[in-house]
Amino acid sequence: MRTDPDAHGTGAYGKLEKIFRRRALIGEATGVLGWDSSVNMPPGGAAARAEQMATLRVMAHELITGSDVAGLLDEALANAAQLDRWQSSNLREMGRAWLHATAVPADLVASRSRAAAAAEAAWRGARADADFKSLQPFLAEVLALTREAGAAKAQALGRPAYDALMDEYEPDADSARVVSVLEDYATFLPELLDAVLAHQARDSDPVPLTGPFPIPAQRLLCRHMAETVGLDFNTARLDESLHPFSGGVPEDSRITTRYHDDSFLDSLMGVLHESGHAMYERGLPAAWRYQPVGEARGMTLHESQSLLVEMQVCRSPEFFEWAAPVLARVFAAQGPAWTSANLYRLATRVAPSLIRVEADEVTYPAHIILRTRLERAMIAGDLAVADLPGAWNDGMVELLGIRPPDDRLGCLQDIHWPDGAFGYFPTYSLGAMAAAQLAAAARVADPQIMPSIAKGDFEPLMAWLRPNVHNKASLISTDELLIEATGRPLGADAFKDHLRRRYLAA
Amino acid sequence: MRTDPDAHGTGAYGKLEKIFRRRALIGEATGVLGWDSSVNMPPGGAAARAEQMATLRVMAHELITGSDVAGLLDEALANAAQLDRWQSSNLREMGRAWLHATAVPADLVASRSRAAAAAEAAWRGARADADFKSLQPFLAEVLALTREAGAAKAQALGRPAYDALMDEYEPDADSARVVSVLEDYATFLPELLDAVLAHQARDSDPVPLTGPFPIPAQRLLCRHMAETVGLDFNTARLDESLHPFSGGVPEDSRITTRYHDDSFLDSLMGVLHESGHAMYERGLPAAWRYQPVGEARGMTLHESQSLLVEMQVCRSPEFFEWAAPVLARVFAAQGPAWTSANLYRLATRVAPSLIRVEADEVTYPAHIILRTRLERAMIAGDLAVADLPGAWNDGMVELLGIRPPDDRLGCLQDIHWPDGAFGYFPTYSLGAMAAAQLAAAARVADPQIMPSIAKGDFEPLMAWLRPNVHNKASLISTDELLIEATGRPLGADAFKDHLRRRYLAA
Repeated sequence: MRTDPDAHGTGAYGKLEKIFRRRALIGEATGVLGWDSSVNMPPGGAAARAEQMATLRVMAHELITGSDVAGLLDEALANAAQLDRWQSSNLREMGRAWLHATAVPADLVASRSRAAAAAEAAWRGARADADFKSLQPFLAEVLALTREAGAAKAQALGRPAYDALMDEYEPDADSARVVSVLEDYATFLPELLDAVLAHQARDSDPVPLTGPFPIPAQRLLCRHMAETVGLDFNTARLDESLHPFSGGVPEDSRITTRYHDDSFLDSLMGVLHESGHAMYERGLPAAWRYQPVGEARGMTLHESQSLLVEMQVCRSPEFFEWAAPVLARVFAAQGPAWTSANLYRLATRVAPSLIRVEADEVTYPAHIILRTRLERAMIAGDLAVADLPGAWNDGMVELLGIRPPDDRLGCLQDIHWPDGAFGYFPTYSLGAMAAAQLAAAARVADPQIMPSIAKGDFEPLMAWLRPNVHNKASLISTDELLIEATGRPLGADAFKDHLRRRYLAA
Repeated sequence: MRTDPDAHGTGAYGKLEKIFRRRALIGEATGVLGWDSSVNMPPGGAAARAEQMATLRVMAHELITGSDVAGLLDEALANAAQLDRWQSSNLREMGRAWLHATAVPADLVASRSRAAAAAEAAWRGARADADFKSLQPFLAEVLALTREAGAAKAQALGRPAYDALMDEYEPDADSARVVSVLEDYATFLPELLDAVLAHQARDSDPVPLTGPFPIPAQRLLCRHMAETVGLDFNTARLDESLHPFSGGVPEDSRITTRYHDDSFLDSLMGVLHESGHAMYERGLPAAWRYQPVGEARGMTLHESQSLLVEMQVCRSPEFFEWAAPVLARVFAAQGPAWTSANLYRLATRVAPSLIRVEADEVTYPAHIILRTRLERAMIAGDLAVADLPGAWNDGMVELLGIRPPDDRLGCLQDIHWPDGAFGYFPTYSLGAMAAAQLAAAARVADPQIMPSIAKGDFEPLMAWLRPNVHNKASLISTDELLIEATGRPLGADAFKDHLRRRYLAA
């Protein structure tokens, strides 16, 4: 059990486990501070909180950039024959963390962090005012420093800069393959979208739900839904924040959502999504808690777990067969809008739209393809920040046939770039593809999974995910995990099949 | 400005400022985790949270026990002539922190922390069941380790063990003087109490308030009251927890209370009390944020600030003159119970009682005198844990003439001893005395303070407290501060005068 601080060995590997255990605990503490900032913190507390979090981050960083870690890694590698499979993988992940931490000089880390904080603040104002020009110099600074960091990481990891940046979010990411998968979808999308829209148009529109839907009722509903997925509120919380997220630790999951009384489908689907993330964290192996190998494999698999629950399992006829009467009861509603068939149609409506986080699953990848093209061009130096709005708008026309009327509905909608996160966006769509692939394999392995969902029972699904995904943590690569679980490395086929089946059949 | 991390000098003193700045920030982060445990955390999160907090505490501890700090302190002391007054005091406080941190061997620190965690858990069960025997071995272990720590601190500080333990909570505490002040009150109390009870009995009983008092209305009331004292909810929160407390940082005060719908005076007075604590923290000098000299002086002055607001200022005819119509409006109530005179009488009712935290201000010191006698005897080795319940019950009879029917209402009521906090209790009553002394001086210095309270205006009070208490932080000792502010060192006279005036006059 790596959970006992005295259980680590006295050799180089054991010393590394102690160092990384402390690093993980600082990371968990930082997570509590971050959760509190999003859920509780009064606005005046922001500057003090930033100092607290920066201090913890610096200390975690110093722990692995400390001069002894390189030597310990070398020594542990030299004695790697003594390590078991999990220990070997743990050592590999320690090495990856060390590479990322040491690749970039400390002053560049600090400059990037300050530039991101300034750009994030500028972004909030710029987005509210749809004023890209006011963000432009800040974003240019973030991009310049990110390119510098990318060059440093490229050298350390021996991989192209964009791949090295992606590696922080998706270990071993290969941008050539990622691009080929995404661009293949870009080719596939126009025909699919036309067919889906035509298919939708054959029927009358679904009956709209008319609110208001009181927020206290939505809160109870969402809590019940999170419990149904598998969260237990002795070891979890559900709160409200501007941007929904999943945080906390396996014994204290912290998911959030936001409520609007004119709609409940958004908060409901959001909570199902975040519950999927939380169930992954809760299923990580307790014996490897606090060690790198015990962490979630990467953002692709993390997003696969949220999308598997939300998109694959819950935007399904089976889910609404169970949920429709629950929803009608919670809102004391009745009528044709509240049939399971109508609710399912509402939850799977497809239409090109401008905002990524509101997109349906057919058009969502187009938003990712656009961002991936643009951020690769920016990192390569082929696209200047000043030219971003135009390139964005042209891309939206090309991919979805719609042009944002302003930058608020265009390139100002996401926080990722101002925050310095380049290489993150692709994991959303890779996650959707992994989710489809895993869901297909799960349904074959246990044909009772979807019939159980129709009874509000998620346990058969989780019983398959635990050994096949959750418990494996970072033992093997994303592709190795997918091969073991589904027989194939990550690809778009299962996702395409899923879309055809859901949106074109019947 | 010590708030800028790059502003510290490059000499030994500047290096120390950098180390202590980081320590303070880790302390603030730990505070967020502690607040969250009390306010938000689901029960299942306790073990993981304990690990997170222990990690941060160990790191803060290691920062000052690191081998270079002793040398830096020596070097800075040798060059102390270059330091200004605040820097000199800062260096003195750094030295005190270093002494406390290094006096006790690391393994003893860890054993104490583990024993306290075990005893605290045992205490929760023991208190619920009124079963002292189940706590006894755990408390004995905590006491043994605390005595060991006390001996180590006695040696390091060159002071008696009990004084050295007190020093953590009240710097430079002199137990002989503390005991003489408290025992003087013990002598004074019987006659005062008889007179107060006789004086109370002359009049008819106050008209009781009959609830229920809806908790949403209490929440609004308490929020309004905290704002009236001076909190601003852009930089503060008011939440609920089992044990009310004040935490957070000056720009993000976090006070808590608890509500019962059969009474609102408890939550109201509790919030006024915690607001007093928070105003002290908010008034600490921003220029010395993150440095030891910028911290609150000690628990005596901290408690003086909460009791000054709650007891001196708010349990007054002036406060209820303003508050009575506010209260009647909040609860949509009217009648003889809601007059300012009746509310004031309800808020100043005196009667011997068994539970410290529910005691009135006349009998409260008796609870502290009892605990101080017992804990001094335990630290000296003159009282065994097995004999604690009997000694407690006899002491209650001697001091207040009442005998607890069981240990839940006796020696099991407080968490302090299971938690290893010996030497803390006296600061509650020293705080009450300091509050009376400061309030008397404040009223003389600005005769408008109490008339302003009668209009719901706390600013004249705060305008006096800021320069005389809050802004001084740890620049000078508690006694020096009291001499500058009131002309006298800490004593019981002002407190006695206050009690005679409030409970015997008119």
